[in-house]
Amino acid sequence: MSGQGQYSSQLLENAVSQFAKLPSIGRKTALRLVLHLLRQEQEDVEAFTSAVSHLRSDIRYCHICHNISDSDTCDICSDKHRNNRQVCVVENIRDVMAIESTRQYNGVYHVLGGVISPMDGIGPDDLTIESLHDKVASKAVDEVILALSTTMEGDTTNYYIYKRIAPYGIPVTTIARGVAVGDELEYADALTLGRSLVNRVPFDTTLNY
Amino acid sequence: MSGQGQYSSQLLENAVSQFAKLPSIGRKTALRLVLHLLRQEQEDVEAFTSAVSHLRSDIRYCHICHNISDSDTCDICSDKHRNNRQVCVVENIRDVMAIESTRQYNGVYHVLGGVISPMDGIGPDDLTIESLHDKVASKAVDEVILALSTTMEGDTTNYYIYKRIAPYGIPVTTIARGVAVGDELEYADALTLGRSLVNRVPFDTTLNY
Repeated sequence: MSGQGQYSSQLLENAVSQFAKLPSIGRKTALRLVLHLLRQEQEDVEAFTSAVSHLRSDIRYCHICHNISDSDTCDICSDKHRNNRQVCVVENIRDVMAIESTRQYNGVYHVLGGVISPMDGIGPDDLTIESLHDKVASKAVDEVILALSTTMEGDTTNYYIYKRIAPYGIPVTTIARGVAVGDELEYADALTLGRSLVNRVPFDTTLNY
Repeated sequence: MSGQGQYSSQLLENAVSQFAKLPSIGRKTALRLVLHLLRQEQEDVEAFTSAVSHLRSDIRYCHICHNISDSDTCDICSDKHRNNRQVCVVENIRDVMAIESTRQYNGVYHVLGGVISPMDGIGPDDLTIESLHDKVASKAVDEVILALSTTMEGDTTNYYIYKRIAPYGIPVTTIARGVAVGDELEYADALTLGRSLVNRVPFDTTLNY
């Protein structure tokens, strides 16, 4: 009964509550979104709800890299021009999109579906680590590039994966950590700056800075 | 093809595009929301979509005040304890909720559905002004309180309504504009401060400041 928590309609209340369950959407924003939808044509609202339900019910995952896909094999894995023996391990589809947008990578991906996080109850078995192990064990992979977040969970996962596939003797690399392009040195944190010194590389005149 | 605009799935792309049509939701946020829904159980996603479709298809508007309602007459208009001869004119349901949350008002509302805005193609006929006029003309109203935004559009609408109902000789008031409770005078803008001086009221020892 307090604040602006009273709605004049149960239908409105339901819709607002559903929107407010989404991450970073509070009840005020939810109400604004719902009132916006209410002003749209019936068929536009149906297009919205049907896009959401079809996504959830019809979505599939690539059987090779586990990325979200419309078919059994995603476009990246079925692309003959890509090097499918170079595998970049990422957390989720957003990381795939971020790396794809750089246009600097021509290998394929392996989407873990998260990182090991005991606090959130996510163990190695909840991720696609065994599938990665099987790929490596079947000698289908020349290099594994670990591209997980630099968090405790990311580091733990990196280490777990490394221990799991090290016996097969293929190169396991991680993406470089260093001072971001365009950043001034004085504002970089000490850990990043230190890492960028340890992992220094020969000066390359062909790169466009 | 540029940036992070490529999705690995058409279903994903559709859902993201639909979310990105909502106000203040960009494509990055839309993707985050959609991936969140994708991780939910099928029935939770169905609860979400069904709440939205039911809202749009089953929602009704109170035939007296035009507020969103589940029935022909909203809870406020059908409340016998409220003074239905005192009518507060507001833009939309959010303003009704804001005023209700103050618990300072015991009259009823008249929801305009917007304000006159030639720039957005909204004229007097797109609002519920005639219905307000008819209420006043039928001698069902003792006082009309105008509570629209202090914008050019709000002022225009206030003036239009005033001219339309002035012939019937009932009191037409507007909510007080002044320095917000808790605000320091030096930070109030000159217009608001000026208005608060012109509209000064007798000191009232019963109000809890």
